[in-house]
Amino acid sequence: MNKTKIFHELHHRDRPLVLPNAWDFGSAAVLAAEGFPAIGTTSLGVAVAAGLPDGTGVTEAATMALARLLAGLPVPVTVDIEGGFSETPSAVADYAQQLAESGLAGINLEDGRAGSTLAEPDHQAELIGAIKDRAPELFVNARVDTYWVKDDIERTLARVERYTAAGADGIFVPGLTDPEGIAQLVAATPLPVNILYSPTGPSIAELGELGVRRVSTGSLLYRSALAVAVETARAVRDGGSLPIVAPPYTEIQALTD
Amino acid sequence: MNKTKIFHELHHRDRPLVLPNAWDFGSAAVLAAEGFPAIGTTSLGVAVAAGLPDGTGVTEAATMALARLLAGLPVPVTVDIEGGFSETPSAVADYAQQLAESGLAGINLEDGRAGSTLAEPDHQAELIGAIKDRAPELFVNARVDTYWVKDDIERTLARVERYTAAGADGIFVPGLTDPEGIAQLVAATPLPVNILYSPTGPSIAELGELGVRRVSTGSLLYRSALAVAVETARAVRDGGSLPIVAPPYTEIQALTD
Repeated sequence: MNKTKIFHELHHRDRPLVLPNAWDFGSAAVLAAEGFPAIGTTSLGVAVAAGLPDGTGVTEAATMALARLLAGLPVPVTVDIEGGFSETPSAVADYAQQLAESGLAGINLEDGRAGSTLAEPDHQAELIGAIKDRAPELFVNARVDTYWVKDDIERTLARVERYTAAGADGIFVPGLTDPEGIAQLVAATPLPVNILYSPTGPSIAELGELGVRRVSTGSLLYRSALAVAVETARAVRDGGSLPIVAPPYTEIQALTD
Repeated sequence: MNKTKIFHELHHRDRPLVLPNAWDFGSAAVLAAEGFPAIGTTSLGVAVAAGLPDGTGVTEAATMALARLLAGLPVPVTVDIEGGFSETPSAVADYAQQLAESGLAGINLEDGRAGSTLAEPDHQAELIGAIKDRAPELFVNARVDTYWVKDDIERTLARVERYTAAGADGIFVPGLTDPEGIAQLVAATPLPVNILYSPTGPSIAELGELGVRRVSTGSLLYRSALAVAVETARAVRDGGSLPIVAPPYTEIQALTD
């Protein structure tokens, strides 16, 4: 079974798939080595690592470069391609096809656009359809950004229905954390539902009971990495104890073997 | 005073300069925002982030790209260029000149070579001299890798003398942690001495008393970042508490403003 098929199958296990989101090759490789069965990326992390603002489309090249690196890992990898870096269905499909051909198992495509706006649902559905026509095996996780712009469950479910009909393989509603809303979402689509982990939201076990099939960490790992870098440097400077035990040089060097 | 002059001056303060080593734009920007007066890079981090092994010279382009990004920060930046990515003095000088022109304040140039070997001291001195002829303002930190290959203090001091005479601006002996050896090193050169921080070695205050002028963190921050990514992902998966409080999305996004 190839990695893309394995990735689809990972959405139908007893417990939800916990998908950690990496920002570079090292973080992806170390998470794969830890036993996570699949790896995602964080668009915030990939953008800020390259000195670029998130969500403006300028990370197209950085995302493709990282995707090609991560395709060499032994586990399935899915990347966040923001809104597809274009509004032209054939261009978005071209980009997705290149990712699929490089060995990627899946993508996240979001309907959020610059300035806290949302794409028209029909247009977004057209992008999803174009990708599925061109790269039918690729797992297309349709991200519904209504909760990022403080929208309600009704409008969310209307979009979910539209993207499900367009051929998406999964539905992702970041920002939705209340159990009742999650249950309504799961009931509204036959597709596997992805929820963004929140430190103050339901646990993985609770999400599993609600019918969620995938839980991702979004930008949490990158934000934690920057926090630990600052705390470690501060401890060195001020003489405090280090916040975490770092693996030895040789262990990190071996990730590229 | 420009950033390069400030960087030279930072080696002559009351306490040693604590120089944290970043691996990407985000980590450098967050460390500068924390108040560190200068930022370095870690060749391990830069290499592994790009899926490349450290110390093989293939990180030349990645290092240049990162250097250009970091030159836009408000604080002086020095980058680790391994052995200079070439054995030809004019080629190493070209590379250093491009870095200086992009706004970089300094470089680390090491005499360690592939397979735990060391460059001939005369040849390494020639590389240092070529850089200083071409980019006289650039702070050239001459790294002596004798302690990486289990060498003794005598051989180290002979190299220090050679690189000091060649025009280096600073001396860096990673792996040297015993106070007696550090005191001998400080006595052997008029240049500011850089020591690699070790969690089991002397504190910053103790290093300052020994006459050390700069303490860098090497790959520690990147290794800690990968460790916290794994621990955070594991805590999400297994239901434990998160190892660190991550800054909010908006704070990280604002680093690229």
